Amino acid sequence: MLCENIQRDAGGGLRFAGFPLRALAEKYGTPLYLMDEERLRQNCRMYVRAFQEQFGEKGRVLYAGKAACFKQMLRLADEEGLGLDAVSVGEIRTALAAGFPPEKIFFHGNGRTAADVRAGLEAGVGIFVADNAEELELLQREAALAGKRQKILLRITPGIDTHTYAAVRTGQVDSKFGFPLETGQADEAVKTALSLPNLELRGLHCHVGSQVFDEDVFERTVDVMTAYMARLRARFGWLPELLDLGGGYGVRYTEADKPADIPGRIALVAQRLRQRCKELELPLPTVLMEPGRSIVADAGMTVYSVCSVKRIPGYKSYVIVDGGMGDNPRYALYGAAYTVLHAERTGGEEAVFELVGRCCETGDVVQPQVRLPADTKAGDLIAVCTTGAYNYSMASNYNRYPRPPVVLLSKAGDRLAVRRETPEDVLALDV
Amino acid sequence: MLCENIQRDAGGGLRFAGFPLRALAEKYGTPLYLMDEERLRQNCRMYVRAFQEQFGEKGRVLYAGKAACFKQMLRLADEEGLGLDAVSVGEIRTALAAGFPPEKIFFHGNGRTAADVRAGLEAGVGIFVADNAEELELLQREAALAGKRQKILLRITPGIDTHTYAAVRTGQVDSKFGFPLETGQADEAVKTALSLPNLELRGLHCHVGSQVFDEDVFERTVDVMTAYMARLRARFGWLPELLDLGGGYGVRYTEADKPADIPGRIALVAQRLRQRCKELELPLPTVLMEPGRSIVADAGMTVYSVCSVKRIPGYKSYVIVDGGMGDNPRYALYGAAYTVLHAERTGGEEAVFELVGRCCETGDVVQPQVRLPADTKAGDLIAVCTTGAYNYSMASNYNRYPRPPVVLLSKAGDRLAVRRETPEDVLALDV
Repeated sequence: MLCENIQRDAGGGLRFAGFPLRALAEKYGTPLYLMDEERLRQNCRMYVRAFQEQFGEKGRVLYAGKAACFKQMLRLADEEGLGLDAVSVGEIRTALAAGFPPEKIFFHGNGRTAADVRAGLEAGVGIFVADNAEELELLQREAALAGKRQKILLRITPGIDTHTYAAVRTGQVDSKFGFPLETGQADEAVKTALSLPNLELRGLHCHVGSQVFDEDVFERTVDVMTAYMARLRARFGWLPELLDLGGGYGVRYTEADKPADIPGRIALVAQRLRQRCKELELPLPTVLMEPGRSIVADAGMTVYSVCSVKRIPGYKSYVIVDGGMGDNPRYALYGAAYTVLHAERTGGEEAVFELVGRCCETGDVVQPQVRLPADTKAGDLIAVCTTGAYNYSMASNYNRYPRPPVVLLSKAGDRLAVRRETPEDVLALDV
Repeated sequence: MLCENIQRDAGGGLRFAGFPLRALAEKYGTPLYLMDEERLRQNCRMYVRAFQEQFGEKGRVLYAGKAACFKQMLRLADEEGLGLDAVSVGEIRTALAAGFPPEKIFFHGNGRTAADVRAGLEAGVGIFVADNAEELELLQREAALAGKRQKILLRITPGIDTHTYAAVRTGQVDSKFGFPLETGQADEAVKTALSLPNLELRGLHCHVGSQVFDEDVFERTVDVMTAYMARLRARFGWLPELLDLGGGYGVRYTEADKPADIPGRIALVAQRLRQRCKELELPLPTVLMEPGRSIVADAGMTVYSVCSVKRIPGYKSYVIVDGGMGDNPRYALYGAAYTVLHAERTGGEEAVFELVGRCCETGDVVQPQVRLPADTKAGDLIAVCTTGAYNYSMASNYNRYPRPPVVLLSKAGDRLAVRRETPEDVLALDV
């Protein structure tokens, strides 16, 4: 199986985190997002442990809330000792509602309004990560109005290209994010930030991309960033205490993705950092990373019911399920690969189907060309694996479909983390 | 200007439907969806008039709610004499809440559950459009349980390929929608439907694609469908009273799209239908079409505020606005083209910018390579034209951003049709 939290009973029924899908589907209905709490905690602990081993007191892990943001998820991240990378006031509000300590929130964003900045200041977020010149000005102005000295990082674009897909690549010079290093704009930003009385520049942030498998991308980032630290010391007599390397380790969506040895990769990053700091005679900064996808992706699964199976002789066959691009737009957006399993039986003759949704749109494909039992029929349950990241968080009400609930599975049982939306909820904003 | 409802004041300020954008932005905030009520009504009337002229009593226009579905929109469609093409229980609930007569609703879908069918029957929708064999069974079963005889159409896949983009092409044999004609599955469906005691087969539906500009695609559809009607008469002694040709006339997103003469196109379709019916000695069926995009697209505009302008010397320049793929995912999904205007000034030096959103994702592009005043700066308003279709309806809370409001503009003034979502609304489903 793709991940150890997926098992099959002798009778062929699929279990996730030990729970039979048929029973969950009957209890909560479909479509249904499941989250394996144990796996979430394991993934958090894997990062926290690797950081403690490599950086001791000088390591901090932030959960990138954008991957999956709801109260119980953020509470869990807090319990596991992670901070939070929040990208909007909505994420901050979710964190506060979950009792997340605001001082452990890093507030990112490349398009913050004055109201956003004010909300962040009022919430008492620990660190603002400033993305651009207008934001620096805005932060200074709002911090002054609030009578605060706000800790900040600057987001630097290190000019590193990754081999991930274009929509999630962020490290190249030519990015909407951050101050480019190559053009001198990063230098300007550091100079400005150091001069602003209500801002306290604590360090640098960078992020090179998401779902990254390149072997040495974080090491190359360390090379660039440490060289830049040396340059900043020489030029401004200033050194970052915090170095936030962003997130991005890849996860296994299919058997073709090899498992990433994240603690091993972190050890190599740490080794490179110590080496470079030694060479450049730099003090070791506090190192941060912001995993999102690799915390939640394989802790998630989506369960659908088959509505119809359409076999068009001489053409394709379709399995139409009761969800689709509304609850998982990632195939429509990126052609994202997923592993699809029949949740009730295996073995026997198989056939190739297009797994499609019920939206009134041809592009509503969950996954093309999946192998399923040839006799797949209406009422069967279908599981799509590794949907913990960027599924619930990107869900829409397209075609006025309510969004599915999120159910957390743990040793203590199953419980709702996000309740099922109703047609009345969808209507609630209409005047 | 792209559409006559867009004007510029002498001072350079943009107006939509006669309303200055600056004043609307100050009143409602940004991002902001605007809808021009007069234009909506004109578009509805253009269809209704063309249908009356061509088909007299034998023509009916249904609004395809999926393009933009909220109560005031459906109320307006009803006032203008349109029926409704609804694709989900959510759309039907919206219609009922708007006071839309249920007997004028055509309920489509390719993935309906028993609960969906039951809700449709309870609502008293006029016509179910059956998409597949399982649905026919389900409809019969549920109609019998409800003690009803339900009128239905069958959705036929006519095997016509259009030149629109793949994600919205629907007429080819190899589609998730409908009963393919070519494979004999349509014949089977007609035979079955005629035999089911609680279903009353009233006609046929087909839909070949959306944003269609091909000159004769509906005429070709008429050729195929009339030939099929003759075949059905010969084989089953049955003729459809209703022939629903679906929707799909293209709209102008940019100056490069030539304006579609929709009444002229409908006249040609009618002429072809009369000619074919005469040749085949068929009675003229009642003809339906289901425009969505061409009713609402050019009645819509989105207004953003610029958060930041990032100029990367030697690379690109970015205008970052306070919305993006959350309120308009169509560039991320299809690379959709839009016309972008600076809402406050024109003339003077221009530069090329990437217009991007504030989501924490590189793929969050509203439109690449747009020409805007070179001095575009934070706080400026930017208008994206022709966003009435599939913008609000596809919006998400990605990054936990609340969705913008929809404001209707009419001679009577401006009024909310959908209120602005709040961070509290976004949190409301969290347990």
